[in-house]
Amino acid sequence: MPLWTIHHSAECLNVEDRRALAADITGLYSGLPRFYVGVVYVEAGPGTLFVGGVTPRRFVRVGVDQIARTLPDAAAREWWIDKVNRRLAPFMSQRELDWELHIDETSRDLWLIQGMRPPMPGSPGETLWRDRAEPVPYE
Amino acid sequence: MPLWTIHHSAECLNVEDRRALAADITGLYSGLPRFYVGVVYVEAGPGTLFVGGVTPRRFVRVGVDQIARTLPDAAAREWWIDKVNRRLAPFMSQRELDWELHIDETSRDLWLIQGMRPPMPGSPGETLWRDRAEPVPYE
Amino acid sequence: MPLWTIHHSAECLNVEDRRALAADITGLYSGLPRFYVGVVYVEAGPGTLFVGGVTPRRFVRVGVDQIARTLPDAAAREWWIDKVNRRLAPFMSQRELDWELHIDETSRDLWLIQGMRPPMPGSPGETLWRDRAEPVPYE
Repeated sequence: MPLWTIHHSAECLNVEDRRALAADITGLYSGLPRFYVGVVYVEAGPGTLFVGGVTPRRFVRVGVDQIARTLPDAAAREWWIDKVNRRLAPFMSQRELDWELHIDETSRDLWLIQGMRPPMPGSPGETLWRDRAEPVPYE
Repeated sequence: MPLWTIHHSAECLNVEDRRALAADITGLYSGLPRFYVGVVYVEAGPGTLFVGGVTPRRFVRVGVDQIARTLPDAAAREWWIDKVNRRLAPFMSQRELDWELHIDETSRDLWLIQGMRPPMPGSPGETLWRDRAEPVPYE
Repeated sequence: MPLWTIHHSAECLNVEDRRALAADITGLYSGLPRFYVGVVYVEAGPGTLFVGGVTPRRFVRVGVDQIARTLPDAAAREWWIDKVNRRLAPFMSQRELDWELHIDETSRDLWLIQGMRPPMPGSPGETLWRDRAEPVPYE
């Protein structure tokens, strides 16, 4: 959590692109343990991706699951989506990609890492996980 | 947005089926810009899809992400799911497919197309996007 | 519904592992029709899965969609996530896998099986579906 699932047209993102974008995305969440940020790419095979009923040429469709209630109101959501946009837009425009993104919010109560409920935001446990760069027992 | 992710058993949907179903789905959202409608197919390889613990024979599992609050109450949700059903059921029964579908709702505030916040429903911006069939600057 | 989507590093889960885990997951929902439980595995190809910006070695990332309001409060969510944890943790630790899981909740009103709205929890229709092990017309 967050988990970014990125569908893309065939041959429009190579491994270096994917690594660079994953690094950009991970940077969005600086301050959190880096291992929280998962990114999955799915390259579209023939006849597996349609936009408006047709196969797009250079298209990236991003879906994000992240924790609800970290963006409690419309102002916080606007701040966040603008931050995401500033981070991703240069990557996309440099490569002349069409793109769309949406974020879904899920419950912190229904989240496990390595069999543990992750520490609360800003808690000593979270700092420990971030500094150790792994999910260790806390408190 | 909406994004339809369609998992299916091996060899039960060919490219023509997938194209036809994507067109059916896109038609559900008539009045909106067609490019809003994304459809992704995932064909199950051996040992990658289980229903009730076993590999299904001819099964299609549809998951949809669409914007929250366009279906504000139970009556609106019932109207929509019935509309979806009438659209998909003939396709599935003609091909003797078992199928399941669920729809998840996500926030309009956390949605970007081509680096822009999409125009509000029924706004002149939305009409512009629909008629131009691409996301152009608006207002 | 529920739908479990399981991304995993290359070669860390074979077909037998996947079948065993799908059976474990299905058992979590005992009392419900078994065919409610869908599990999809996605094996990561080179350069398609990143955690904290790097390719993980033996990592399983589980995302679950299940019906909202069956876990109405924090106590119910805690009970459920602990039950999930006890079921999955042995599987993961025996295979020395790193893992993360989150559950998203979606609306029962926006759910179809075989063109039908599934019966209400605990209703005679649900018992019928469970005992017949298929979605038949009810009421």
